[in-house]
Amino acid sequence: MAAPLYGGIEAGGTKFVCAVGTGPDDIREEIRFPTTEPEPTIRKAIEFFRNQEHGQLSAIGISSFGPVDPDPGSPTFGHITTTPKKPWLHTDFAGPIHRALAVPVGFDTDVNGAALGEWRWGAGRSLNTIIYLTVGTGIGGGVLIDGRPHHGMIHPEMGHVRIPHDRTRDPFEGSCPFHKDCLEGLASGPAIEARAGRKGDSIEPDDPLWDIIAEYLAYSLVNYIVVLSPQRIILGGGVMDQQQLFPKIRERVGSFLNGYIQSPAILDRIDSFIVPPGLGNRAGVLGAIALAEEAAHREQ
Amino acid sequence: MAAPLYGGIEAGGTKFVCAVGTGPDDIREEIRFPTTEPEPTIRKAIEFFRNQEHGQLSAIGISSFGPVDPDPGSPTFGHITTTPKKPWLHTDFAGPIHRALAVPVGFDTDVNGAALGEWRWGAGRSLNTIIYLTVGTGIGGGVLIDGRPHHGMIHPEMGHVRIPHDRTRDPFEGSCPFHKDCLEGLASGPAIEARAGRKGDSIEPDDPLWDIIAEYLAYSLVNYIVVLSPQRIILGGGVMDQQQLFPKIRERVGSFLNGYIQSPAILDRIDSFIVPPGLGNRAGVLGAIALAEEAAHREQ
Repeated sequence: MAAPLYGGIEAGGTKFVCAVGTGPDDIREEIRFPTTEPEPTIRKAIEFFRNQEHGQLSAIGISSFGPVDPDPGSPTFGHITTTPKKPWLHTDFAGPIHRALAVPVGFDTDVNGAALGEWRWGAGRSLNTIIYLTVGTGIGGGVLIDGRPHHGMIHPEMGHVRIPHDRTRDPFEGSCPFHKDCLEGLASGPAIEARAGRKGDSIEPDDPLWDIIAEYLAYSLVNYIVVLSPQRIILGGGVMDQQQLFPKIRERVGSFLNGYIQSPAILDRIDSFIVPPGLGNRAGVLGAIALAEEAAHREQ
Repeated sequence: MAAPLYGGIEAGGTKFVCAVGTGPDDIREEIRFPTTEPEPTIRKAIEFFRNQEHGQLSAIGISSFGPVDPDPGSPTFGHITTTPKKPWLHTDFAGPIHRALAVPVGFDTDVNGAALGEWRWGAGRSLNTIIYLTVGTGIGGGVLIDGRPHHGMIHPEMGHVRIPHDRTRDPFEGSCPFHKDCLEGLASGPAIEARAGRKGDSIEPDDPLWDIIAEYLAYSLVNYIVVLSPQRIILGGGVMDQQQLFPKIRERVGSFLNGYIQSPAILDRIDSFIVPPGLGNRAGVLGAIALAEEAAHREQ
């Protein structure tokens, strides 16, 4: 019997990626299109899955920008909730997909999806607690515990941690509309751009601004470590394309923890504790495929 | 058939509490004694359980000061590991108890034990993600997810989060020997005492120092909320006997989050979101009984 075939939707604030396949080595078809209004955007995804010719899909997974309602027991399961992206406010996303395609639908945040993809096929395999953090236009984190995306009350919003901010060294007040100088307000793409007056990818790798960004990310990682005790932290997103950040962050995490957490993973092997995504920039859409796989198993 | 009878050990850095019973309404016998060297202290606990006359114990639970190794699959399971309390460094704690009493032994951190007790019988009942934070000589947190203590790589060390520290308002440099001004370094009992020159319980409830302490605790709770998305946070420990801290902390958590987490629990019902322990100061020993119950069920 052939392996079950899944559909995945990586729903970002600016673009959608839809794919059909079974895993990282077997993506049979893929499409990308801009995120516009909910109705035409969702319709386009449905048409793609209807017209693909690789066989019957066993389930669809959606990893979505948010905030979302990922609780299958809730009346608004599968909705995008209080997003600042106005046309999508309180939009039922999983519902129309499920009605049109009549297969189980898995639905979670983009970062929980990516974390699940990394746990299934990437840098988080066989670990019981991992964090996937994306550092880009926004900063968000997904948490996998024993192979399941963690939700709690709603879902984590790890980009909004509060950290030390030395205003003498970095007078930038922070760009988060809710919190000013939370992590996202200090270290996201727009926060970097606001200080430098140009995009991060045009700033020299040895610019001292990267030391400041690495410091905020390191303080945040320390906070994730003491709260969640993860076995690995995976850092993705556009800002992390700046490879010089990895050694800077690792070094500061070690020095901020200062030997308090007596774990060889941190003390001796920090290069394999704080890592880039094993799936590269495909973590998102493969995460959606992993969410589909999970939904299919749940309904069996 | 009578309900199974359990033994619990709340192992603190200064005293041990041992009890026999089945739950909060049925503690049959209890003993307290100071924590001295490991061998005589553990022996005293064993003798107490041997000589109790209420029937055969089904299991023993130990909720211990730490750091500890709570991983049943590890060769050093049940050990106290890198504690600053020198005589207890790398002490096998669960082993001698298990060998002497020949029953299953549950073993976890004091705060994971307390969190489990609160989930089983106290302020965390029927919730899937709760945090128990003790604020006393040290600050530590336990996390229950779906009724199980969360460990991850080792176990959380939530007292050591990094938070904003405005040195103009509070020039105190922090008392944590590892991190100076982490939460524990700023808001633990000794940190309060170091600023005031006297014990916290002799400081007036309207002293402005409590506003500063509430601010640090609120920043930390915000960090726990965005990382873990808990459904309730339970605050215990000696410092939290200062009841005036609760409204101060709740107000600041609301204002720091600034409406970002759109949850009625936080927006409308914060009084039942940030709460004192339902089991009062018995959370510790009842947590140990809950760990025993869990160990008994695991071995069935």
